[in-house]
Amino acid sequence: MNIIVQKYGGSSLSTTEKINNIAIKILERCTSGVSIAVVVSAMGDTTDNLLDIARSITQYPSKRELDMLLSTGEQVSIALLSMAIENQGGKAISMTGLQSGIVTTNDHSRAKIRQIKISRILKPLQEGKVVIIAGFQGVGKGMQITTLGRGGSDTTAAALAAELKAECCEIYTDVDGVFTADPQIVPNARKLNYISYEEMLELAGSGAQVLHPRAVEITMKYNIPLKVLSAHTPGTGTTVVEAKMIEQVAITGITSDKNVARIAIQSVPDKPGMAGRIFGAIAKTGTNVKLIVQSVGIGNTIDFSMLVSCEDVDAVVAVLNEICPKIKAYGVTCATKLAEVSIVGSGIASTPGIAAKMFKTLADEKINIEFISTSHIRIVCVVHKDKADDAVKALYRAFDL
Amino acid sequence: MNIIVQKYGGSSLSTTEKINNIAIKILERCTSGVSIAVVVSAMGDTTDNLLDIARSITQYPSKRELDMLLSTGEQVSIALLSMAIENQGGKAISMTGLQSGIVTTNDHSRAKIRQIKISRILKPLQEGKVVIIAGFQGVGKGMQITTLGRGGSDTTAAALAAELKAECCEIYTDVDGVFTADPQIVPNARKLNYISYEEMLELAGSGAQVLHPRAVEITMKYNIPLKVLSAHTPGTGTTVVEAKMIEQVAITGITSDKNVARIAIQSVPDKPGMAGRIFGAIAKTGTNVKLIVQSVGIGNTIDFSMLVSCEDVDAVVAVLNEICPKIKAYGVTCATKLAEVSIVGSGIASTPGIAAKMFKTLADEKINIEFISTSHIRIVCVVHKDKADDAVKALYRAFDL
Repeated sequence: MNIIVQKYGGSSLSTTEKINNIAIKILERCTSGVSIAVVVSAMGDTTDNLLDIARSITQYPSKRELDMLLSTGEQVSIALLSMAIENQGGKAISMTGLQSGIVTTNDHSRAKIRQIKISRILKPLQEGKVVIIAGFQGVGKGMQITTLGRGGSDTTAAALAAELKAECCEIYTDVDGVFTADPQIVPNARKLNYISYEEMLELAGSGAQVLHPRAVEITMKYNIPLKVLSAHTPGTGTTVVEAKMIEQVAITGITSDKNVARIAIQSVPDKPGMAGRIFGAIAKTGTNVKLIVQSVGIGNTIDFSMLVSCEDVDAVVAVLNEICPKIKAYGVTCATKLAEVSIVGSGIASTPGIAAKMFKTLADEKINIEFISTSHIRIVCVVHKDKADDAVKALYRAFDL
Repeated sequence: MNIIVQKYGGSSLSTTEKINNIAIKILERCTSGVSIAVVVSAMGDTTDNLLDIARSITQYPSKRELDMLLSTGEQVSIALLSMAIENQGGKAISMTGLQSGIVTTNDHSRAKIRQIKISRILKPLQEGKVVIIAGFQGVGKGMQITTLGRGGSDTTAAALAAELKAECCEIYTDVDGVFTADPQIVPNARKLNYISYEEMLELAGSGAQVLHPRAVEITMKYNIPLKVLSAHTPGTGTTVVEAKMIEQVAITGITSDKNVARIAIQSVPDKPGMAGRIFGAIAKTGTNVKLIVQSVGIGNTIDFSMLVSCEDVDAVVAVLNEICPKIKAYGVTCATKLAEVSIVGSGIASTPGIAAKMFKTLADEKINIEFISTSHIRIVCVVHKDKADDAVKALYRAFDL
């Protein structure tokens, strides 16, 4: 059985007309002899609307009950898409996360997939049905309904593709593929036909909204071809492949993420175990720290700076304020209104002078760099939020994408 | 543990403000030392809205997918009510039909409860939590999500009360209790403080919307006190009790149901097994036949007339047209635009002349009776739909309720 996993996002499913169109597309694809498992998100703004209703009851809904509430969004989508396929004469069956055996940890609102009981999905596929699976959700211990957090439906699709040994994992979105920069900031940004998993990971992790990094990680690990395609127009999209398959270019793309804050804990005594203690405490809040820089502080001390998403600031600052006196550190500072600007490309490590060119470009634009971090295939500069778009445009020109 | 099962209908939960008020009411009740399991319906018009969305995709959605869709309505309610209780400082946990172990048959859209795995509900009750359970839904074989059909949430509450051996099953509605007639037709209709299970069953089965007959049957069978109360105003409501506990009155109430049609199959050869064959075929459509009358036809034949809900007419007529030539019957007729008007009371069998008085009252009003059926505690006259309200008013005056 040749299986394809497709994922459709919320904006591709925002009306019943769009749902009907997707049903027709899926059935056309079925005629080519492949078996299709489809992962869907909640329709349009459903999730935000449900969040608004919850907030009109309480500012601090429990995460368990929020998962119970939000998971209804995808359940509506799977039922409607199944109906649409059946209405077009096809065979379909919808499944919630619980029914399709997507077993997760019990961390409500940010659960991780542990296992997928694929027999529940394989059986209807073998019967010739299109299997429509609710993305973003799973089931924890004691039949608890969980959700996977941001980008959850991408993660569901990638994990399913891996477990089902799918031929391909196709992510359908509102754009034609992965671009060298955000076309809303850089109008002449170019669509990439191919990108490596590593580059995609760095792009996705540094603000490109098109694909969630967890989905890239999973497909990379299991070597499942991953495609980003338009849900509305035909086209080849962008194929994410192994690095060796594509010609190496220095810079593949430029991204920005305006939802970051820098938190620092200063003058931590330079003793073994400090980093473990600090970041262990932060990990318990469930925060994903995006970047960590350790630098020399005053006297025999060190400073830790980190970049986190804005919504995690309160939790991290609270934890650090609590730990600060215990480890005899000096204090905690926090800067918001920042943005990450990244250049990503598998050629960065092998092409001398790219970092220097990036810093000079920003300096020429009089954009102050607050924070720098580099990896083999990515250079991140943190700048003031208001300067982020200018930085992206200047870098786009400078690197001649 | 003294357990109370409460059920709140959709109109009592139509806004987050109403949900908050119900949360406060539940917590006040908890202070009296009882453990509370709450069954809820979908908020306001949610179910109708979901049906509209489904119909914009297909006029004939599969029942499985419709159950998948509609069950989200109650799931939203349980999450929000749990959040509201937690926000008021209480402890609560929400459970879908599947999670609370409400095991049903696999008849989508009209499933029957087979079993409730109450340990899943007892455990959180013992931990001092208010357990909020999605009404109207359950789980069939293979973890299929099912719904119970009309009045499903009442049925869920009654079945739970029976399995939990609850002290009482309280049905909260928009009215103050059960009335001697519909107050919208008869403005001076009186609220009943007590009514017997049998009378309530006949009233509920003949058009009184306040309570579903399945819920009455279950509580009667397990002898669980059943109360109908206002969700908004304090009051004693109506208590449904064993007949021996209440003073016998001839007539307890008058109801009408304007959603009926009469179907007849004529000149069926008078041979053994005909009734079984005809009504067996009808049963396969899932139709609940409300009344059956067998009468002598022309020659050595019999006629069967039956009363069904309007929405079942097409299915029943189709089945009868198919069976008609096979059993050599003459033909099938169908009359819609009819209404059932019933008088109910445990004294009917023991008080001579009540039926005669009912027929005379209708005759005096020049209301033609199309169909008559009687039981120990109920007399039904089928009249033209347009005459139903006049009939109720006239009977109300005649029997001096």
